[in-house]
Amino acid sequence: MSQVDTQLEETKAQIESEIPDDISVTDVKYEGPELVVYTRHPKEFAGNGDLVRRLASKLRKRITIRPHPDVLSDPTEAEGRILSVIPEEAGVTDLDFHQDTGEVVIEAEKPGMVIGRHGSTLREITQEVGWTPEVVRTPPIESSTVSNVRNFLKQEREERRDILERVGRQIHREEMADDQWVRITTLGCCREVGRAAFVLNTAETRILVDCGDKPGSDGEVPYLQVPEALGAGAQNIDAVVLTHAHLDHSALLPLIFKYGYDGPIYCTEPTRDLMGLLTLDYLDVANKEGRTPPYESSQVREAIKHTIPLEYGDVTDIAPDVKLTFHNAGHILGSAVSHFHIGDGLYNVCFSGDIHYDDTRLFNGAVNDFPRVETLVMESTYGGRNDYQTDQEDSERRLVEVINEAHDRGGKVLIPAFAVGRSQEMMLVIEEAMRSGKIPEMPVHLDGMIWEATAIHTTYPEYLRDELRDRIFHEDENPFLADQFNHIDGGEEERQDVADGGPCIILSTSGMVTGGPIMSWLRHLGGEEESILTFVGYQAQGTLGRRIQNGWEEIPVQNRNGSGRTDTLTLKMDVETVDGFSGHADRQGLENFVKTMNPRPEKVLCVHGDERSVQDLSSALYHDYNMRTFAPKNLETFRFK
Amino acid sequence: MSQVDTQLEETKAQIESEIPDDISVTDVKYEGPELVVYTRHPKEFAGNGDLVRRLASKLRKRITIRPHPDVLSDPTEAEGRILSVIPEEAGVTDLDFHQDTGEVVIEAEKPGMVIGRHGSTLREITQEVGWTPEVVRTPPIESSTVSNVRNFLKQEREERRDILERVGRQIHREEMADDQWVRITTLGCCREVGRAAFVLNTAETRILVDCGDKPGSDGEVPYLQVPEALGAGAQNIDAVVLTHAHLDHSALLPLIFKYGYDGPIYCTEPTRDLMGLLTLDYLDVANKEGRTPPYESSQVREAIKHTIPLEYGDVTDIAPDVKLTFHNAGHILGSAVSHFHIGDGLYNVCFSGDIHYDDTRLFNGAVNDFPRVETLVMESTYGGRNDYQTDQEDSERRLVEVINEAHDRGGKVLIPAFAVGRSQEMMLVIEEAMRSGKIPEMPVHLDGMIWEATAIHTTYPEYLRDELRDRIFHEDENPFLADQFNHIDGGEEERQDVADGGPCIILSTSGMVTGGPIMSWLRHLGGEEESILTFVGYQAQGTLGRRIQNGWEEIPVQNRNGSGRTDTLTLKMDVETVDGFSGHADRQGLENFVKTMNPRPEKVLCVHGDERSVQDLSSALYHDYNMRTFAPKNLETFRFK
Ligand SMILES: [Zn+2]
Ligand SMILES: [Zn+2]
Ligand SMILES: [Zn+2]
Ligand SMILES: [Zn+2]
Ligand SMILES: [Zn+2]
Repeated sequence: MSQVDTQLEETKAQIESEIPDDISVTDVKYEGPELVVYTRHPKEFAGNGDLVRRLASKLRKRITIRPHPDVLSDPTEAEGRILSVIPEEAGVTDLDFHQDTGEVVIEAEKPGMVIGRHGSTLREITQEVGWTPEVVRTPPIESSTVSNVRNFLKQEREERRDILERVGRQIHREEMADDQWVRITTLGCCREVGRAAFVLNTAETRILVDCGDKPGSDGEVPYLQVPEALGAGAQNIDAVVLTHAHLDHSALLPLIFKYGYDGPIYCTEPTRDLMGLLTLDYLDVANKEGRTPPYESSQVREAIKHTIPLEYGDVTDIAPDVKLTFHNAGHILGSAVSHFHIGDGLYNVCFSGDIHYDDTRLFNGAVNDFPRVETLVMESTYGGRNDYQTDQEDSERRLVEVINEAHDRGGKVLIPAFAVGRSQEMMLVIEEAMRSGKIPEMPVHLDGMIWEATAIHTTYPEYLRDELRDRIFHEDENPFLADQFNHIDGGEEERQDVADGGPCIILSTSGMVTGGPIMSWLRHLGGEEESILTFVGYQAQGTLGRRIQNGWEEIPVQNRNGSGRTDTLTLKMDVETVDGFSGHADRQGLENFVKTMNPRPEKVLCVHGDERSVQDLSSALYHDYNMRTFAPKNLETFRFK
Repeated sequence: MSQVDTQLEETKAQIESEIPDDISVTDVKYEGPELVVYTRHPKEFAGNGDLVRRLASKLRKRITIRPHPDVLSDPTEAEGRILSVIPEEAGVTDLDFHQDTGEVVIEAEKPGMVIGRHGSTLREITQEVGWTPEVVRTPPIESSTVSNVRNFLKQEREERRDILERVGRQIHREEMADDQWVRITTLGCCREVGRAAFVLNTAETRILVDCGDKPGSDGEVPYLQVPEALGAGAQNIDAVVLTHAHLDHSALLPLIFKYGYDGPIYCTEPTRDLMGLLTLDYLDVANKEGRTPPYESSQVREAIKHTIPLEYGDVTDIAPDVKLTFHNAGHILGSAVSHFHIGDGLYNVCFSGDIHYDDTRLFNGAVNDFPRVETLVMESTYGGRNDYQTDQEDSERRLVEVINEAHDRGGKVLIPAFAVGRSQEMMLVIEEAMRSGKIPEMPVHLDGMIWEATAIHTTYPEYLRDELRDRIFHEDENPFLADQFNHIDGGEEERQDVADGGPCIILSTSGMVTGGPIMSWLRHLGGEEESILTFVGYQAQGTLGRRIQNGWEEIPVQNRNGSGRTDTLTLKMDVETVDGFSGHADRQGLENFVKTMNPRPEKVLCVHGDERSVQDLSSALYHDYNMRTFAPKNLETFRFK
């Protein structure tokens, strides 16, 4: 009998000794970080006050109770009884019964009403039918990504259970190392922006944090081939942690499954879905541009299948000696500051991921309050000594001016925008301005992946700013459902209609004018002197967006008839730039994040910024707060303990 | 056909195009770093002026010419002709013909006379008999280590040729990496003395530098198990470089053969022999103390079999992108400052190993002159701010006083000494003092491994200080052959005789009174008030030597009758300490080594010293010479390029 089996036997005996004699335990298993307890008496478990809570705190594990298959009531019968327990206003849209685990997945428009106060309605359901309920939200805007992910996971249910059991046994294995240390190896995004990837390594455990690409570079990928990472075999990685879905953090994650990785990815649920959306698009773009992508869509599915979603604040065992906790990072939907507690009080490392320190319309500001933290690995995108940004209030005022100006002369406002994050922030700004009468009512067209990304945002309102979340919960106030918003889903024909029509606002990808429907919009509107092309996001060196900002007026566009020939378009639109809508903290925000951090870390590694930014931030933090700061190079290893 | 074979074919064609038509080339092969050219015309090759030298510089390779087996003359006949070419004074003691390679190994008392001016005699031999001569020195003092190593290598000749061919093909493989970087990972001896071990890593190559133990620690071995070292499989190491034979650098080298390493060890020839002597003794001590040694003597033989000896100053390809050059380190016999030239001018790293900066009687001071060097990995044993040592001149004066005092009152001088290095230095000091009349003539007894270590020193006079080497070349002046020196090879009986006799000097191991014959000498002489126990080397914390220095007079000694019981001996001898004979540079020497280094390195990693020493030296070098200095921890990785 393996050591894990022995441990499970002991756990079972301990549970039995803690619960009343008339409640049976038929089996205990690990599923990922959770302990699953099977019983012939699920109703009694559910009925017995806070029995599960007491067990969880006694065993210091997350516990799920599941009915033994023998005692499951008939699904058809159970369905009626479940629906009678749940208030009708919850808006149940689907019930899905899984005989193998005794779970029933309830999809509802208002999950909160299915859960009830402190989970009372859920317990009532179990007491009524014996099945274990699980609740998911019905996307308020239909999202193909969300439904594809959910359907895929349903279809792969059996393999997923195997994965979870295997991962669970790995997490709860006996510690083998008799030594103790904590190290970080930098595989990318040091003295550069892009290809974020780190290895967090203890004597016992090796964790890969992020695995992104470097946009605009020619094949500069993270140094995965070194033995500290995957060079010694992908099976040496115990876990992967993904801070957020942006491609500079996620693009090459599916690749590691090609290299034979078979373990878990920890991230938030929205990060999982957005990663699916963005990496599939990444493959798409590569194919369209005639490049061979480094992996296939089947590896994206592997990544999704191996994802174990965690919520902000959940302290989760991910290895015998490592606990992970995610906290809101304020950067994009599901973005997480990732806190690692190592050993039994041995050491604490915090990876900021990308952060926004102040509240925005979309998100609360990044969390920087932890039980303990000795070392912080810190993004430095705007860490340069002059990287202070306009206040968002001023930026919004300026945007309102631009929109009014275009409207007044009968023109349109064309905004190139990133699908995830910045587009939703713009939607909120525009919706508010229109509602309060600062700009006239007019259609706002959303083109490219923006609509889909917005749908994913509305599926996870818990991850949005408090006020916004509350508005979405009250369907009639959901700003993303405002009438002005129109999804461009009619292709060129619809674009032509819009172009022929009156004043309007158009948000379209790609955000740096490097391809996508924005190119088509430039063909339609480029000649209109009354319209305004408005940049609201960072335009990287070498992109067409940056060139236009710099005054280029002769723009190469692909010929409309698909011949592959390139025409030259003379841009007559006004060009405006409205700064201040970044998803990244500016220099002040980065300093504030560290300054107000509780507790103040001893060491800071400044990463995810160009050479000047990381050096500036590193020396500023050293001088102002007397911490040990570093501006690492890629491929270095730091030992902390 | 493999890429290496293609390359060899091309090389053969190139050689053929460079040499006269009447000289044939039958085969070209790699043997380790050398290119071996087989020919049916060895005599013509040898006769043709500097043909080989021109080829070597054209091909930028070390070249050895060997006769095709078909054209070899009969060994018995050849023997006579060889002996007629070599001057009789050369003192040939053995001729060994190897039909497989056409080599004849000539062992002679005066190898220089077999070689002749610029190799003229060697060429004459080849022209006369066709065989390729190789010369080794007949040890002036018989050394079982040297003869065991030589006999073993003779016996394993065939496997060794296979190893060399394999290594040669590895070295000359095509570079695979399209990236370029240089990194060092610290596996031991950081902020501590002991368990020296580093990995020097390029995108193409991984080299292990040293692999020692930590004396006096309980099982603190280098971190070999991490993936940057052997964790990813021993086959990922391309080469091992050993700076010198001390156990804190060599003790665990044989272990890596147990882990499956099958590649080359580069070190000097005396380091190879001393490593054999010291690691076998290391196993012996472990066995005697009832500990299970981490490997067997068969792994020591593997290590010797895989050793490719290099001479000081030889620039040697050890990987497609790495050239290694050893330089005298002045620390012990064969100790080497190891210079790595990486890529085609990409980067240069120098490992000091252990060094002595000033000349001693035994060795010239450490070399610190290089074509280029950007990073220096520097020993710091005496790097502390107060680690200045007495001048050796003063120390010698004090030693003379002590010896005279003991002699005057009819006593003996008992000196615990390390077998390798310090003992030979003491022998030279004593011989000189006696010869010049500063102390009276009296016997000097050498006990333990000292005699054997001395014999190895005399086998390699090229590695000793210029003046000393010259004296050894003139046999009648070889100080180690002086009449006073007596090898204690008669065990307890002889020791009893010595103890019963008159004034004398005894040098005995172990150097820190932790075991060995010194324990027996303490039993014999411990009660003699007229005798003086004289410490001349560092006594580590926790050793009996240190305790005696601190005034302990009650000494536990094992009962003479072998019962295993421990008696207590009351020490009545005088106890003296004479500092200044260290094999390590003191603080001043370390600073001078860096200060006068040509060129001055940009970065210095201070290692091989306790926490205080490395910090002191690191900050002193930073402040005085404005270099970037580091005091690494174990298990860190530094990237330089
Ligand atoms: Zn991001
Ligand atoms: Zn990023
Ligand atoms: Zn040494
Ligand atoms: Zn030493
Ligand atoms: Zn040493």
